Amino acid sequence: MTQDLYQSPSAIETAFYDAFARLDLSLMVAIWLPGERAVCIHPGGQLLRGADAVLDGWRQIFNGAAPPSVEHFVIDTFNGGDLSVHLVEERIRPHHAPAERANRLIATNVYLRQGGRWYLAEHHGSLPLVKQPRGQAIAEKPRLH
Amino acid sequence: MTQDLYQSPSAIETAFYDAFARLDLSLMVAIWLPGERAVCIHPGGQLLRGADAVLDGWRQIFNGAAPPSVEHFVIDTFNGGDLSVHLVEERIRPHHAPAERANRLIATNVYLRQGGRWYLAEHHGSLPLVKQPRGQAIAEKPRLH
Repeated sequence: MTQDLYQSPSAIETAFYDAFARLDLSLMVAIWLPGERAVCIHPGGQLLRGADAVLDGWRQIFNGAAPPSVEHFVIDTFNGGDLSVHLVEERIRPHHAPAERANRLIATNVYLRQGGRWYLAEHHGSLPLVKQPRGQAIAEKPRLH
Repeated sequence: MTQDLYQSPSAIETAFYDAFARLDLSLMVAIWLPGERAVCIHPGGQLLRGADAVLDGWRQIFNGAAPPSVEHFVIDTFNGGDLSVHLVEERIRPHHAPAERANRLIATNVYLRQGGRWYLAEHHGSLPLVKQPRGQAIAEKPRLH
């Protein structure tokens, strides 16, 4: 891992999805904005605020999980100074599952430059991007009650 | 309505929630980014992209509805040049319903300055921010099938 990781929102974004795919909490720690302003909203989930809560959320997701297949496709970006917003389609499927079982999610990722490097400041995910065949994505989403 | 409306992300944000509360589609037209880059994701909804799709979505929401009570509370903002991101708690309740019936939602709003004025470029909503008593918010969310 080189310092290039921190030089652009796109590099941080790639590292974020790599960290998810590899269940790599250390990499998550490296890319998330430290302190109280980090924001993470998982699909169907509560607001997690502050790096501790955000990273604890990822720790819970990673705990006992098999590494998933994670692809991301940038739909659009908005850029301004030390701030960048990426609208992203995510395709996430369980380890070894066929491609047609991928859940297609939509996320807004917000990147912030501080002290000469970029951080992931906010991840806001929703599901599904499109309806899955036979309601598959709906059946697989976290239950609310 | 004065031109002050367009001079800051916060003014646009207030106008956005006023437009929702008053079911005012003309005001929505005035504040949303025109063209193909506008993005709206309603809680539990699909990705709507482009001003036509976004405004048609609001038209469907407004159609036959009674004006709701809409409050918004800014949790945090990220600012950079001609771009601003607001993390917002929304409290939305039906016309004349008591305050305790409000749904508490969370939204990421993205503002973009173009041609010397600000626009709402993206609204990404999720629900619920916190669990409601007796699953009330869940019962009121749009059905998925």
